[in-house]
Amino acid sequence: MESNILIKGVLLHDSKQDILIKGNRIEKIGVDIECSGATLIDGKGKAAIPGFVNMHTHAAMTLMRGIGEDMTLMDWLYNKIWPTEQKLDDELVYWGTKLACLEMLKTGTTCFNDQYWNLDAAVKATSEMGMRSVQPYVILDLGDNAKWEKIKRECTEAWERSREWGVLNKFSVGIHAPYSVSEHMLEWGSDFAKERDLLLHIHISETEKENLESIEKHGLTPTAYLDEIGLLNSKVIAAHCLWIDDKDMQILADRNVKVVHNINSNLKIASGYKFRYKEFKDAGLVVTLGTDGCASSNNLDMLETMKTTALVQKGWRGDPRAMPMDELLNLATKNGGISLGLEIGELKEGSLADISLIDMDNYAFTPNIDFYANLIYSANSSCVDTVICDGKVLMQNRYVNGEEDILWNVNKLFKKLL
Amino acid sequence: MESNILIKGVLLHDSKQDILIKGNRIEKIGVDIECSGATLIDGKGKAAIPGFVNMHTHAAMTLMRGIGEDMTLMDWLYNKIWPTEQKLDDELVYWGTKLACLEMLKTGTTCFNDQYWNLDAAVKATSEMGMRSVQPYVILDLGDNAKWEKIKRECTEAWERSREWGVLNKFSVGIHAPYSVSEHMLEWGSDFAKERDLLLHIHISETEKENLESIEKHGLTPTAYLDEIGLLNSKVIAAHCLWIDDKDMQILADRNVKVVHNINSNLKIASGYKFRYKEFKDAGLVVTLGTDGCASSNNLDMLETMKTTALVQKGWRGDPRAMPMDELLNLATKNGGISLGLEIGELKEGSLADISLIDMDNYAFTPNIDFYANLIYSANSSCVDTVICDGKVLMQNRYVNGEEDILWNVNKLFKKLL
Repeated sequence: MESNILIKGVLLHDSKQDILIKGNRIEKIGVDIECSGATLIDGKGKAAIPGFVNMHTHAAMTLMRGIGEDMTLMDWLYNKIWPTEQKLDDELVYWGTKLACLEMLKTGTTCFNDQYWNLDAAVKATSEMGMRSVQPYVILDLGDNAKWEKIKRECTEAWERSREWGVLNKFSVGIHAPYSVSEHMLEWGSDFAKERDLLLHIHISETEKENLESIEKHGLTPTAYLDEIGLLNSKVIAAHCLWIDDKDMQILADRNVKVVHNINSNLKIASGYKFRYKEFKDAGLVVTLGTDGCASSNNLDMLETMKTTALVQKGWRGDPRAMPMDELLNLATKNGGISLGLEIGELKEGSLADISLIDMDNYAFTPNIDFYANLIYSANSSCVDTVICDGKVLMQNRYVNGEEDILWNVNKLFKKLL
Repeated sequence: MESNILIKGVLLHDSKQDILIKGNRIEKIGVDIECSGATLIDGKGKAAIPGFVNMHTHAAMTLMRGIGEDMTLMDWLYNKIWPTEQKLDDELVYWGTKLACLEMLKTGTTCFNDQYWNLDAAVKATSEMGMRSVQPYVILDLGDNAKWEKIKRECTEAWERSREWGVLNKFSVGIHAPYSVSEHMLEWGSDFAKERDLLLHIHISETEKENLESIEKHGLTPTAYLDEIGLLNSKVIAAHCLWIDDKDMQILADRNVKVVHNINSNLKIASGYKFRYKEFKDAGLVVTLGTDGCASSNNLDMLETMKTTALVQKGWRGDPRAMPMDELLNLATKNGGISLGLEIGELKEGSLADISLIDMDNYAFTPNIDFYANLIYSANSSCVDTVICDGKVLMQNRYVNGEEDILWNVNKLFKKLL
């Protein structure tokens, strides 16, 4: 028998509502809903918002939090990250992903679009945590054709195994980036995804250097190059897109590519910050937000990501109206659902029940003239009190089952990486 | 008899230490300190850092949190803030300042440099909360010479009353800005401060518009103009300094003016963001951080301010080394102490005992490869567990005495402002 949950008297948009969850969906929203036998959650002093959708991360990089600070990008990558990643194994990725899930639940995220190694371990961890995710097999050959057969075999096998993943985790094709993957594998990965109607998750134009090198090598920007080889379509999720000119913008719009902005990571490793939100929006593109991995941006906090996104858009545009709050909330929720093809990111009848309850009983919501302003600009993610994913309560009173065990194991294991 | 506090086995810099507080000062730092009769605080799982020094705020603007979002500066100021401020009274400022103090304690700040109205009410609130502050009489005449005598009388009377404030609150002269105060009152306020060796707290070059108008009116930038009339010296605390050219920089350095950077406010109301930290540092200037008031930046969170400061410096400079963590921590602590002439901002024997204890037992400090990286880039201010100011415990286990009462009163009263 499926379990029902009834959230009573919670602030939803502008008024107090009850929310009835049957199984994994929102059955009904209204006042004075009754449902005998349902688990009751008291919504007094709380507001309901959709679970955040973190559209670009490398979850298990939680293990490398703080490993390379105040370093230049290339020093960081060559001397810290890549040598460290050589030491990863299933056990580390399993616990690193569990820690990532714990952190995401604590900060109100219910769904994430991952791109990392040791896929089976990551999926096992995510499944156990009860979160929703899209998990890729990652293609990265660094131009070495000796790796092609192994990659093709592993990707195919991983996709076959993914049929047993259950409903919460979706398989995708991860392609690291146009500069790190040979054309043959870009085309193979793209065809593999198209034939199976899979999402394809790729980094595009994170740095100016990448663009300059692409123009030198192909006579084309990364976006134009990927379009020329037929990779871009509406199932492609493009992380970063920081250095996008008007022609690139038109290509991305024509192909209906989904775009992920990762401002904290972009600022911290100084890749750039002038993300062209207004132009993306005007071109009709679906823009979403991500945290990137913890080795570059140090946490997986989507609420903080929303705030930095808005502040930096207002700042670099010189216009305090550059990022209205309703649009900002959509970037972190609804647009993620659209991009991943999931009925999440909006609290409405029929949607999947991915919900966070915000505790307003503290200084950050006092006075509460504007709930969304308080949530985005005044509070931090410690205001997230309860998280429901796919109709199951994963956090209540800020407690996640097994959290001590996760911290204990990561603290024991991470030293293997140092 | 003075009370003693002994913090046992707390992480301080790189090792576990005991910290003994006698009266209002740090008496001793070392291992295995004994002190019979001292109140013991268990430092296990915690790290000690200096209380943050918020060098520019308008405390009671907590009352206006969220009142004017996504608005242009002039619309915000003329149609929201100024009309609202007309309705302020002592009771509102008292509770608004109490809420500000509560928020600052919750986020690890022990000292703030205020600039707001209803001075006596603000000082009463701050004293009751046990925090350290610098509180000004604010001079703002908007060019109206009919106001001069009243301002002079009130300022003098306020200064006289300030002798009864007690040790934690210091009187200063607040001058709103060179564009909003007539030359006569700029000179009068400056002389008043100099004669009494008082700090002078002023806004300088927050917007480009202010600079352009100053050049049109005086033929000089705001900095050059203030220097010409003899206002600048080492007791002057200049908030913002966003639009500072090389000549201004040299003047500020020659006069040893103290500079306050307020990045969240600057971004949110789109005043600018290219704060020239490197040049200020190279010129030998003491740079500090502030949150500004809650009507522009929505919270008083110095940890968040540190993070945004570092991210934006790295971003706009295109250099991930643009804000090393040790310097960043000094901006938020030690440099505030230097600017205010107070022995705070460093945890060393003999200093005033203004200390925060950080709870590391959570995901944000897991793994704890680099404590300061985790504090600044991974955690949020909910990690602040205990706050000691002037040798007194003002928050423990994140609880501040009377906090419910403050929220209740603000929630009751703020509607008078709408």
